[in-house]
Amino acid sequence: MKPILAELLTIGDEILYGQIVDTNSQWMSVELDKVGIKVIRKTSVGDVESEILSAFAEAEQRADIILITGGLGPTSDDLTKPLLAKYFNCELKLHEEALQELSAYFKSRGRELSETNKQQAFLPVCCTKITNPVGTAPGMWFERNGKIFMSMPGVPHEMKKMMTERVIPKLKEKFKTPTIVHKVIRTVGIGESFLADKITAWEKSLPTHIKLAYLPSLGEVKLRLTGFGDDEQKLKAEVEGLTAKIQPLAGEYIYGYGDEPLEAAIGKLLREKKLTISMAESCTGGYLSHLITSVPGSSEYFLGSMVPYDYQIKMRQLGVRPEVLEQYGAVSEPTIIEMANIVRAKFNTDIGVATSGIAGPGGATPEKPVGLVWIAYSDKHHTVTRKLQLSTERLVNIKAASIAVLNLIRTSLPK
Amino acid sequence: MKPILAELLTIGDEILYGQIVDTNSQWMSVELDKVGIKVIRKTSVGDVESEILSAFAEAEQRADIILITGGLGPTSDDLTKPLLAKYFNCELKLHEEALQELSAYFKSRGRELSETNKQQAFLPVCCTKITNPVGTAPGMWFERNGKIFMSMPGVPHEMKKMMTERVIPKLKEKFKTPTIVHKVIRTVGIGESFLADKITAWEKSLPTHIKLAYLPSLGEVKLRLTGFGDDEQKLKAEVEGLTAKIQPLAGEYIYGYGDEPLEAAIGKLLREKKLTISMAESCTGGYLSHLITSVPGSSEYFLGSMVPYDYQIKMRQLGVRPEVLEQYGAVSEPTIIEMANIVRAKFNTDIGVATSGIAGPGGATPEKPVGLVWIAYSDKHHTVTRKLQLSTERLVNIKAASIAVLNLIRTSLPK
Repeated sequence: MKPILAELLTIGDEILYGQIVDTNSQWMSVELDKVGIKVIRKTSVGDVESEILSAFAEAEQRADIILITGGLGPTSDDLTKPLLAKYFNCELKLHEEALQELSAYFKSRGRELSETNKQQAFLPVCCTKITNPVGTAPGMWFERNGKIFMSMPGVPHEMKKMMTERVIPKLKEKFKTPTIVHKVIRTVGIGESFLADKITAWEKSLPTHIKLAYLPSLGEVKLRLTGFGDDEQKLKAEVEGLTAKIQPLAGEYIYGYGDEPLEAAIGKLLREKKLTISMAESCTGGYLSHLITSVPGSSEYFLGSMVPYDYQIKMRQLGVRPEVLEQYGAVSEPTIIEMANIVRAKFNTDIGVATSGIAGPGGATPEKPVGLVWIAYSDKHHTVTRKLQLSTERLVNIKAASIAVLNLIRTSLPK
Repeated sequence: MKPILAELLTIGDEILYGQIVDTNSQWMSVELDKVGIKVIRKTSVGDVESEILSAFAEAEQRADIILITGGLGPTSDDLTKPLLAKYFNCELKLHEEALQELSAYFKSRGRELSETNKQQAFLPVCCTKITNPVGTAPGMWFERNGKIFMSMPGVPHEMKKMMTERVIPKLKEKFKTPTIVHKVIRTVGIGESFLADKITAWEKSLPTHIKLAYLPSLGEVKLRLTGFGDDEQKLKAEVEGLTAKIQPLAGEYIYGYGDEPLEAAIGKLLREKKLTISMAESCTGGYLSHLITSVPGSSEYFLGSMVPYDYQIKMRQLGVRPEVLEQYGAVSEPTIIEMANIVRAKFNTDIGVATSGIAGPGGATPEKPVGLVWIAYSDKHHTVTRKLQLSTERLVNIKAASIAVLNLIRTSLPK
């Protein structure tokens, strides 16, 4: 089957000058990949007529689908709409339905529709209007010689809603996209190359219509299986079967599947087991609590935490014994054990965890270099500690230590 | 003066498939803009010979400088180097100095130089090698008909070091870039359009050789002045003079200049005034402490915090009076005042701050909708509160509330 090719075109000086990072095109790539549309190029041009028109023409040569974002505002430096009208050789005209939608949008927010804003309801007569339910600039769908030009707003949540609800379904209909099944297997606590070594034989056994990608990030590696075929049910069963076969090889590192991040997976485990948790965070400085509380509904299992940054606070507020701190120092196994046990008792939770380390750049000694971190997990059955040697970067250490604690919770919870 | 035009070309399937977000090109845009080189296009292509070669040719037509990242690994899907050799019609040859550098790099890390890795020392004979002090793939600088092709690794910290230390200086020499002076003025606590209203007259008074850009982000707006000229000292003085003139118009919102983020500016204020701080974070769940402790050296002024997420913890651990919680609820002015005062007393700091709100999506009542947040500041002179109505997005609320507290600290500190 001939692949369906797409080009992503971003219009606007703010991307060329580096005022914003283009995160839209990454999101679009992932969504298009999911439905079997292959992105062959990404192009960004500024608010310059000749640049935009030549980008249209070049993209039309290369791709079946040209997805355009940006340049749809109501001011004079927004050129996408007039230039699409010019490129497709048709006039701009007031679109009655677009005007009604625009008026309703402003009315619902208690704002007046100005003459400038009214410009948003003028559309090229040769395009199909795509409603923008969460913004003021409608999308525009053009077809010519079997090729599609689709123009969308650059505001991320407006573009995403339009893509998900309208554009992707229309493209699937128009191009009869292949059947594609994805499965993401999420692992933590093992590096990419070690994981690859463990699953070499399995990877080699994959049939040619099922591809594997390694997606590493700080402390985690995601594996993405992508199956191509005709029969969706059969393909799903095949991908599930292959996923099951990875369990005996690397199951201990797998914490979940799909889009669910580690902190949400930990939350689900705690909720299922009806366990509560508290934290004493020194070197992670609140980031671990932030990860846990970034999950909606986390107040069901997370009762609270303390960040005893200062030596005095470690003793007086948390209650670490001065003789332990003095003998072993704040960054040590005896201290981290006390911290985890004490926070669990004080906050009256089933589990207590703790972190203490040298995040850097200051604070190191010959015996305790930057990147040295102790973490601990405590419940009524056992206390588990880990010594980590991380990096020289403060923020990397804070984040990597927090992920290591989440993994320690996962592997230490009562079965 | 004729502008110096650059095109940024990214090579690699991982960007087209959305496996990574391209943050390199934003960083490069900013650095090029600083020295007066104008980025006119950004292009990303995959690991496909024909695509890469046509991208080279197209870019050469448009730009004076073509900056290429990615595709420099030692494996067979890395095509940038052989295709540059083909494009410039010259052979790949073992580069003795590159081999020495590569061997030294591996030796310093106690690793063996494999045959695959040795490929990194083969370079097109028509390029100038640019040393990569922090990685294995050297950069390659090509010149033809006054145009520059510069190929760099895609790993961000390798690319950044090479750009800053070698490429930008070489480009400045080659192209005699104009004199440019930048000044970033950082504001918090005022929206973009309100700020624009306050400084309209000032903005209109700017001479044509000094441009203004608004750079908004969550809770903050940065203003960037860019001056173009011949005499650097004169231009600097002019930009400083204009910066001073903005003080009487919007000075109360300006917290700093240049690259220093808000949390670092607050840290500097606390250090200068020799004040210590503690926090009681409910709805922000640790994120505020994380911001403060992300600054190196923050242990000088940040002594600790408590995240009393649960109702019981608010009473038993922090010590909020049950009758206050029962009468007014956790998200209320009387409770937030208690939280800030109590954490200051308990942690024995000069300042105490507190947050309590409905981050969402759950937890709302008709009187207390998602996005309602109370924040408080307390020192021995006064206690200051603010009621915020933020968004419906949990993470946006957590972050926006934390920034609002940082601003509350800034505006409430003893003079």
